Amino acid sequence: MKDIREKASIESLGEFGLIDHLTRKIQIRHTSTLRGVGDDAAVLHFGDENVVVTTDLLTEGIHFNLMYVPLKHLGYKAVVVNLSDVYAMNATPRQITVSIALSKRFDLNAVEQLYEGIHMACENYGVDLVGGDTTSSLTGLTISITAIGSAPKEKLVYRSGARVNDLLCVTGDLGGAYMGLQLLERENEVFKVNPKTQPKLEGYDYILQRQLRPEARKDIVEAFRTLGIQPTSMIDISDGLSSEILHLCKNSKLGCHLYEEKIPYDDQTKAMASEMNINPLVAALNGGEDYELLFTLPLSDFDKIKNDPDISVIGHMTSPEEGAMLVTTGGSLIPLVAQGWNHMEKQD
Amino acid sequence: MKDIREKASIESLGEFGLIDHLTRKIQIRHTSTLRGVGDDAAVLHFGDENVVVTTDLLTEGIHFNLMYVPLKHLGYKAVVVNLSDVYAMNATPRQITVSIALSKRFDLNAVEQLYEGIHMACENYGVDLVGGDTTSSLTGLTISITAIGSAPKEKLVYRSGARVNDLLCVTGDLGGAYMGLQLLERENEVFKVNPKTQPKLEGYDYILQRQLRPEARKDIVEAFRTLGIQPTSMIDISDGLSSEILHLCKNSKLGCHLYEEKIPYDDQTKAMASEMNINPLVAALNGGEDYELLFTLPLSDFDKIKNDPDISVIGHMTSPEEGAMLVTTGGSLIPLVAQGWNHMEKQD
Repeated sequence: MKDIREKASIESLGEFGLIDHLTRKIQIRHTSTLRGVGDDAAVLHFGDENVVVTTDLLTEGIHFNLMYVPLKHLGYKAVVVNLSDVYAMNATPRQITVSIALSKRFDLNAVEQLYEGIHMACENYGVDLVGGDTTSSLTGLTISITAIGSAPKEKLVYRSGARVNDLLCVTGDLGGAYMGLQLLERENEVFKVNPKTQPKLEGYDYILQRQLRPEARKDIVEAFRTLGIQPTSMIDISDGLSSEILHLCKNSKLGCHLYEEKIPYDDQTKAMASEMNINPLVAALNGGEDYELLFTLPLSDFDKIKNDPDISVIGHMTSPEEGAMLVTTGGSLIPLVAQGWNHMEKQD
Repeated sequence: MKDIREKASIESLGEFGLIDHLTRKIQIRHTSTLRGVGDDAAVLHFGDENVVVTTDLLTEGIHFNLMYVPLKHLGYKAVVVNLSDVYAMNATPRQITVSIALSKRFDLNAVEQLYEGIHMACENYGVDLVGGDTTSSLTGLTISITAIGSAPKEKLVYRSGARVNDLLCVTGDLGGAYMGLQLLERENEVFKVNPKTQPKLEGYDYILQRQLRPEARKDIVEAFRTLGIQPTSMIDISDGLSSEILHLCKNSKLGCHLYEEKIPYDDQTKAMASEMNINPLVAALNGGEDYELLFTLPLSDFDKIKNDPDISVIGHMTSPEEGAMLVTTGGSLIPLVAQGWNHMEKQD
């Protein structure tokens, strides 16, 4: 009965009513937000700061599977992946717009769960939800988020500023989100065969959280300010370490050496990789969705980061003729290939 | 054969290749665009100007029907509807981001047509395409566009500034896009029954253009500057005149009198309405998608607009107790109702 009543109520609210309903909890936190939702456009003011803008489009069945992704987590993650792009510019996210298209399958309760995650991400990262669009789709759920941030011009970090001999650094650990996804997909396959089984997820809370509810590295960008660090280039890891390193090399017109033995893994990532007979290196290089920051620093900054347990030096930049190479534990050099998380190809 | 080859080529390009391919024609026109596509985020600078941000999400089968909407027109329109929101703030659009999700049904040629329309709109309105996302969907086409504009703080016009006795004005003519849609849907139904028939579209080029390839009122916002006009409130007509007037009344906490006899129609709108036995008033009030500007002006500005054939005075603002009323040709007062173009309800 509950389901039917709530399905009725999303229709009785209508588009404007639904928008009012979903935006009633909005708090404005930034002085740069002059007007949020409620007019033809939001109005912002950044003064002397530069403005960064990034956007992502997530579609059901391609980017997420609602069989095992809770809507609240999905809303949270959809915001976080955009904020991660803003942090990757060494900027501070300020505002987001959120557009969703929903099929009839989703009731008001479902939309509220999604927005609960969105609002929670806004709160945790201190960003203002300033606009969006709420509409129908014939099938499935689509989420489109645009994030806007700002930074003083001299603080911005591009993919293109790395120099020869710069240290190649990464935050946190890699491959966890990919192994979490493998686990969720395995248990989902088991569930489809026998719906009475309980999924075996115990002991893997960390990699599940990495997949379902990742965080963006706000703390690292804040630490850069505190430590007086200005990376020479930076990118966030959404498509896998290989792909991101190649972006830095291409944009900075350099090569690099990445040391296999230096790549950081969490124990759960290694345990699940072992259980599934997957090389954790593959999860790190090609898995994607870790939302860690990959950046380069001058050698002279090494002292500032060497004691930070959350930053690993994984290699260094070389001249472009040397290419982008993985230096294996055995000492061989293998060219890095951008396998990535190719959503255009995943469809096949 | 052509079809198969091109379907293959979209897959062989991959996500990054497709983005490179689609963004190779991009020109940067604005000094406020410091960096466009190619990094984690675009970088913009607006200095003292305020920034406006608006976004729209369009889904196949809800907002457009590819049976009769050419992809090039769709790309053009998807941009224009967002720019219209920026003009409705009395601001100048500067940048857009474009995200698309595509099912396997679309080949490279289809995507190129869509982007041809997008690039053409960017050129005609002088905006920079600075970012986006290109991904897959399991079914259909989804387009999400975010438009960013700027204006000096004192030039911005909200929905909330109208005062009692202000003139209620509208640009261009109304109801055309709705009648164009009725015509397209009628001919599409005929075609579905008998695919050999040719659609009867002769003599209706104007209303078809209003539906398929609308323009945003850049010229009016420029004319405001030239004529020294600062509207007290403004909104663009996307959901129908009724709905937009009610937004102005609600946000400005006023009532209004809208005079039926003052509503401007094109001859083709009237002719098609007559042919289909539809009251053109309904097309204007509830049809939507005209993308004209609805605004209020102090009486003292009447002389500045009275000779402009593109601006009609259609009523005036009243005290809130009087309500938002349609004054019919016969002199009756009927409360305006927001029927709108409710995409949440269209699904039923």
